Amino acid sequence: MRILVLGGDGYLGWPTAMYLSARGHDLAVVDNFAKRRWEVELNVEPLIPIRTLHDRVKAWEEVTGRTIELYVGDLRNYGMAESTLKSFGPEAIIHYGEQPSAPYSMIDHNRAVFTQTNNIAGTLNVLWAMRECARDCHLVKLGTMGEYGTPNIDIEEGFIEIEYKGRKDVLPFPKQAGSFYHLTKVHDSHNILFACRAWKLRSTDLNQGVVYGIETDETQLDERLATSFHYDEVFGTALNRFCVQAVVGVPLTVYGQGGQTRGFLNIRDTLRCVELATLNPPKAGEYRVFNQFTETFNVLQLAEMVKREGEKLGLAVEIQHLKNPRVEAEQHYYNPRHQKLIDLGLTPHLLSDVLLDCMLFRIREYAHRVKKDIILPRVRWDGAREAEESRKLA
Amino acid sequence: MRILVLGGDGYLGWPTAMYLSARGHDLAVVDNFAKRRWEVELNVEPLIPIRTLHDRVKAWEEVTGRTIELYVGDLRNYGMAESTLKSFGPEAIIHYGEQPSAPYSMIDHNRAVFTQTNNIAGTLNVLWAMRECARDCHLVKLGTMGEYGTPNIDIEEGFIEIEYKGRKDVLPFPKQAGSFYHLTKVHDSHNILFACRAWKLRSTDLNQGVVYGIETDETQLDERLATSFHYDEVFGTALNRFCVQAVVGVPLTVYGQGGQTRGFLNIRDTLRCVELATLNPPKAGEYRVFNQFTETFNVLQLAEMVKREGEKLGLAVEIQHLKNPRVEAEQHYYNPRHQKLIDLGLTPHLLSDVLLDCMLFRIREYAHRVKKDIILPRVRWDGAREAEESRKLA
Repeated sequence: MRILVLGGDGYLGWPTAMYLSARGHDLAVVDNFAKRRWEVELNVEPLIPIRTLHDRVKAWEEVTGRTIELYVGDLRNYGMAESTLKSFGPEAIIHYGEQPSAPYSMIDHNRAVFTQTNNIAGTLNVLWAMRECARDCHLVKLGTMGEYGTPNIDIEEGFIEIEYKGRKDVLPFPKQAGSFYHLTKVHDSHNILFACRAWKLRSTDLNQGVVYGIETDETQLDERLATSFHYDEVFGTALNRFCVQAVVGVPLTVYGQGGQTRGFLNIRDTLRCVELATLNPPKAGEYRVFNQFTETFNVLQLAEMVKREGEKLGLAVEIQHLKNPRVEAEQHYYNPRHQKLIDLGLTPHLLSDVLLDCMLFRIREYAHRVKKDIILPRVRWDGAREAEESRKLA
Repeated sequence: MRILVLGGDGYLGWPTAMYLSARGHDLAVVDNFAKRRWEVELNVEPLIPIRTLHDRVKAWEEVTGRTIELYVGDLRNYGMAESTLKSFGPEAIIHYGEQPSAPYSMIDHNRAVFTQTNNIAGTLNVLWAMRECARDCHLVKLGTMGEYGTPNIDIEEGFIEIEYKGRKDVLPFPKQAGSFYHLTKVHDSHNILFACRAWKLRSTDLNQGVVYGIETDETQLDERLATSFHYDEVFGTALNRFCVQAVVGVPLTVYGQGGQTRGFLNIRDTLRCVELATLNPPKAGEYRVFNQFTETFNVLQLAEMVKREGEKLGLAVEIQHLKNPRVEAEQHYYNPRHQKLIDLGLTPHLLSDVLLDCMLFRIREYAHRVKKDIILPRVRWDGAREAEESRKLA
């Protein structure tokens, strides 16, 4: 299958492209390298040094004999989106090409507006370009479980049958996102649903949980194929950050009580889920949603798991509760359904002790590169961040 | 009360500013006159010639002795939004400052992306500026009944109590908007809900039906105070357009079967609803939604009503069914609640024969200005618009 990966330079985009290329598909990646600039802005960097995408594509060919085409450009430029689709002729587009960080979107007005206009305009351009020159193509779009928030009822996969005052309908699941970033995914969902209805496009929206992990079968082939693993407050996520903290001997930073429950999945399962969605496209005009995670944990459970595993390896691990920089419920009901990908054949890699071991060992190799001062949260949802920080980042 | 009206040059913004100024409030209006450029792009114009906003503000002072302050600028510029709030110090902001046309948003990728990024960025900047320098200010935001689409259950005002598998929650009403414009209002709703929660701002979202009417008490004071009344396919709405068609002797253009049912209200009721919301603000942190319309009709009923009234006045009125340029259900259940504004004191002007009479007489004065070639729909939701049209507008 001809598959185009948008955001091919990222934590998930690059491993996805290699994974599908290794399985015989014809791959192309698109990126504008915006995230590399955001890293410089914030003085953060991935744990493992990352080659340029040009060099990784070359290394991939050297190692495997397979080629991945590279398109450099910005999806906010409609001409770029359309000419890429025309030139490559994809049967599926896997869309990771968005600003992916909630804290980044909450830094200030400038980054909030940037995050929303960037993510929305890019996706709209992809939809219009599909309408123009790739009507049968399948858009596999990365959403987030964060779109749903934490309602007091079970969370279904995208749609819910509501019975109300004696009448019934199946309607989009109500959304209550918790940051300007998460809101972009809500906006995308509504836009894509409409485009599928109006133009008979087809799309799968993958409402993904929090991804953890540092290695895939493909990144392990060669050090030059490593993916961009973040542990900082802005681009890092809870479990990845905890593992780095355990290795370098700083306390694991749990936000608030740590009762926030979320869906999690291994990076290897991300690749498999995306593959399953791609190989089983919906029919023309259909917009479907899969909840893409394998297990739920609360943040404190994760911290305790990392502490336990770290201590087995002789690390001294402490857990510290910080004032929660986010606005979110710390105790809440959480029961999201995640059946559709299982039905398509997903066999989860559950978060066993073995997996954490591997991550901790791998992080240890690069422990000397960890910048300890970029881990603590400085971006606060309520706007109470220190004036000095604001000024520096403005 | 100090009240800032965003989009003060528009069909509703200008009459709202006069109405509230006449009632003793301190008013300021903001506009960037973008709509005047879109009119030129599409070669459409309001039925009654409209003075510049500068001149209308002067005329208002001459006629009533009251002043309305004028700020010229673009809300996409954060500095403009913040400095306006700092300078004027509003207690309430009435926000009409968005691209308001569904057909405009469906012309091409460029206008779809513009509509979404323009509306979202402007509103985000207003929210951030309120957070920065007007935390107690009340944002009265114009939304649309079109956010809900036409679900097969009763539509509540913004939120719905869902009982599901033995559990309950009150959640945002599911949204199914029918154009990229309507989707911007859905996106705004989600963004504002979040800002109220995260920053303890207060907002009322007025999900408004289709407004009709050409006169208010204030526009009637002086010809120079007239408001921008559109009858063209892009900025006109069903009932206003039908009245113009009846007067100039072209068939009333009903899209499809005409079974599309919508909420409608008189322009005078818009002003009263906005006033009621403004004078009765929610508490800090609260985001509330009022459904703002007074009656529901289907499109064919409206056309028949105009035909009947027109014939009483001796006009020869024909009804023509056109292939529907939109993607929408032409037969559907529709039972939206609209109680909260009634509870606050709204006494509706219902669509009686008298009101239609007045509109038809007023339109007759300007019938010589009607451009008949801008009434028929050229923008098609499914993208089937003729290539030539596309090229001309690109």
